Amino acid sequence: MQTIKEYVQSNKDRFLEELFALLRFPSVSADPKYKNDVVKTAEFVAQKLKDAGADKVEVCPTAGNPIVYGEKIIDPALPTVLVYGHYDVQPADPLELWETPPFEPTVRDGKIYARGAADDKGQFYMHVKAFEYMIANQALSCNIKFMIEGEEEVGSVNLGTFVKENTERLKSDVIVISDTSMISLEQPSIETGLRGLSYVEVEVTGPNRDLHSGVYGGAVANPATILAKLIASLHDENNHIAIPGFYDDVLELSPAEREALNKAPFDIEEYKQDLGVGDIFGEKGFTTIERTGIRPTLEVNGIWGGYIGEGAKTVLPSKAFAKISMRLVPNQNSERVTELFKKHFEGIAPAYVKVEVKPHHGGEPVVTPTDSIAYKAAEKALEEAFNKKPIPTRGGGSIPIVALFEKELNVKTVLLGFGLDSDNLHSPNEKYGIENYLKGIETIPSFFKYFAELSK
Amino acid sequence: MQTIKEYVQSNKDRFLEELFALLRFPSVSADPKYKNDVVKTAEFVAQKLKDAGADKVEVCPTAGNPIVYGEKIIDPALPTVLVYGHYDVQPADPLELWETPPFEPTVRDGKIYARGAADDKGQFYMHVKAFEYMIANQALSCNIKFMIEGEEEVGSVNLGTFVKENTERLKSDVIVISDTSMISLEQPSIETGLRGLSYVEVEVTGPNRDLHSGVYGGAVANPATILAKLIASLHDENNHIAIPGFYDDVLELSPAEREALNKAPFDIEEYKQDLGVGDIFGEKGFTTIERTGIRPTLEVNGIWGGYIGEGAKTVLPSKAFAKISMRLVPNQNSERVTELFKKHFEGIAPAYVKVEVKPHHGGEPVVTPTDSIAYKAAEKALEEAFNKKPIPTRGGGSIPIVALFEKELNVKTVLLGFGLDSDNLHSPNEKYGIENYLKGIETIPSFFKYFAELSK
Repeated sequence: MQTIKEYVQSNKDRFLEELFALLRFPSVSADPKYKNDVVKTAEFVAQKLKDAGADKVEVCPTAGNPIVYGEKIIDPALPTVLVYGHYDVQPADPLELWETPPFEPTVRDGKIYARGAADDKGQFYMHVKAFEYMIANQALSCNIKFMIEGEEEVGSVNLGTFVKENTERLKSDVIVISDTSMISLEQPSIETGLRGLSYVEVEVTGPNRDLHSGVYGGAVANPATILAKLIASLHDENNHIAIPGFYDDVLELSPAEREALNKAPFDIEEYKQDLGVGDIFGEKGFTTIERTGIRPTLEVNGIWGGYIGEGAKTVLPSKAFAKISMRLVPNQNSERVTELFKKHFEGIAPAYVKVEVKPHHGGEPVVTPTDSIAYKAAEKALEEAFNKKPIPTRGGGSIPIVALFEKELNVKTVLLGFGLDSDNLHSPNEKYGIENYLKGIETIPSFFKYFAELSK
Repeated sequence: MQTIKEYVQSNKDRFLEELFALLRFPSVSADPKYKNDVVKTAEFVAQKLKDAGADKVEVCPTAGNPIVYGEKIIDPALPTVLVYGHYDVQPADPLELWETPPFEPTVRDGKIYARGAADDKGQFYMHVKAFEYMIANQALSCNIKFMIEGEEEVGSVNLGTFVKENTERLKSDVIVISDTSMISLEQPSIETGLRGLSYVEVEVTGPNRDLHSGVYGGAVANPATILAKLIASLHDENNHIAIPGFYDDVLELSPAEREALNKAPFDIEEYKQDLGVGDIFGEKGFTTIERTGIRPTLEVNGIWGGYIGEGAKTVLPSKAFAKISMRLVPNQNSERVTELFKKHFEGIAPAYVKVEVKPHHGGEPVVTPTDSIAYKAAEKALEEAFNKKPIPTRGGGSIPIVALFEKELNVKTVLLGFGLDSDNLHSPNEKYGIENYLKGIETIPSFFKYFAELSK
């Protein structure tokens, strides 16, 4: 019987080849034209689960993209771990900024460059390979269930229904998700909180048709200008979000909690240099770590209107649009915040334009208690693999379904993430370190072992 | 010998067919992919000038799109009229808003729907047909020269050089341009002023790459938000343009001049209903007629940044852009205003973003004195054709080269426009009334006759 270290060593080339094959599928869930690739990806994942030794593997249809399920129940008396991940990816554009094609994985300086490398194909697939090891070496110490979905990047619109309809099948003692990042390979960390999300699209309509800016300019409200004014009014001079009631439910951390949070290694100069910005920016009275971890934010994710082609067009556009998303913290509620935004944004719109706010998707913020068995097991597993005790952090991102799992399945989640903030998630040249990938595979069996032990 | 009325009656079907053929060329100057069609259009125009009886017809190459020249000198002692027009058109997008294809002219309720129908193919071609009549019926009472260019919609970038190099060939006593509108067929009018233009493109750069809005949002300036704030700051609460020095050179009209200007028939309710806006909007202290005629304006012609595709993408974009144009009035100067804008816009940019302003193109404002021979000749010609004395108006649009002609050729321009403000210039479903087209052809020979008489 091999140790996981030995098994990874003797199989790492295959582990990489299999991940590359998975990364070659352009499983972009935001764009219907990839529908076919999405389905092929699900079938590929299902086959790999079977090969690794999973039972009852099924590509479960939903109203949208299918969910891949598989399990291995070795003893009903043992605790059960539910592994969640997603095989869909963000759109790859702007394509011209990729150094190598987004769906042709390429290795440079020990990093795998591809859309989905870290988010989340590279990370959920570690569990498939760790599972393969545990089966092959009779080292599986818990029952295991896999639920790998295909709509995480578009708000997991059909997962809720699936979870509600499959509470028995998904019954478990903990949910493990590897879809977050750690500080570094030298300083492992565990995200103990995730922000919620409210994503909306706004449409501002001025005149009923595009107009000649010379004939009508100055006499008719320009929706692009009005949209700019509306967006500009959403933050005050201290970069607080200026939506009445927005902060009402925000859980303020104690000075001690904030101090602990700010202990995480962080070099502001490195940060600025990495991003190429002259200065940082954000809500007055909070550090960068706090701004991205424990504070809610509002960002314009896209804006467009009028003539955006080559050359010049003297048009006064009929419409202007923006995609705007808000990150939420405990105890904010996504529906309530979306409602507050809609009410405020439509309310401040002047009479000479029409404004419509379309709610897109959302999710609730969550926190994992550091005194839970799951957290302790993760802590011990990471310490064993990295020879350093991991520290708890607050992640800025959102995995909306974590709150859903807690509500519907009444089970807590542990975020066993092996990515890095510099992995360019959602950006061109997304990457994932080969060492992160292999270390992750190496860590997972220990998590199972410790979770079983501590559950006794 | 036929009168022009008889000639138009007996030839109107052919006049329409020829215009339709001209409108079928997608001669979009803003987009390089139409380069070929642009050249074909120039050749078509040249052929039609020859057919009508012009001498020395030439498709003159420039660094950009060719200029079509032709002339008929019947007697050096007679005054010479230079007809200017442009065969290039605005881009047709957004295509989906066209009821019929932009380059397949279609007649509905007596209107010709096509890109370029009124701006300017339908209008300059009236001169070609009026010329054909005058030649065929020995009714030409002045020498005539044609200069039809192909870059008006992109700022006539190469016309200046052509004019400077051809001052002798272009020598004339008046320049006639039909590229503007009149109030209505019931109330003819002549534009006595045109606004100048400063067109710029701005680029705001935040981080050096697109970022995950969850990981970085709230801690890094979002260029889309900053661009919105910058645009919002360009107008104050009274909709005055908030660029220091912007109004310094603006020629204020006397109360009497403003009163005369506001005598033009204008129904604010009809205006709002036609545009589908709940209320009008604009610079405090001025009427709609003044806002579009004698006041400078600043409009966003296009804005874009971040993810603008289908679905949602939680990205914090690296860059955001806008196309912004300013309409200028006497005695503003395009270069100076562009410089003011650039200085201001780059000056107010905060340290955490980079802002670049790229000047696009511009033109100077002009005024045609109503006591000139040319204006009087136009007035009499219109009165004869429409049985109503035309009134002088101020146009909101810009024909930058009019100022150039005055400077380089030292000759005044008369704006003999037959379009209507409702013709959807630069918009989907651009149209031109068949009656406007035929009435225009009918009016032009009288202009030549009266201009010759009054010049004696």
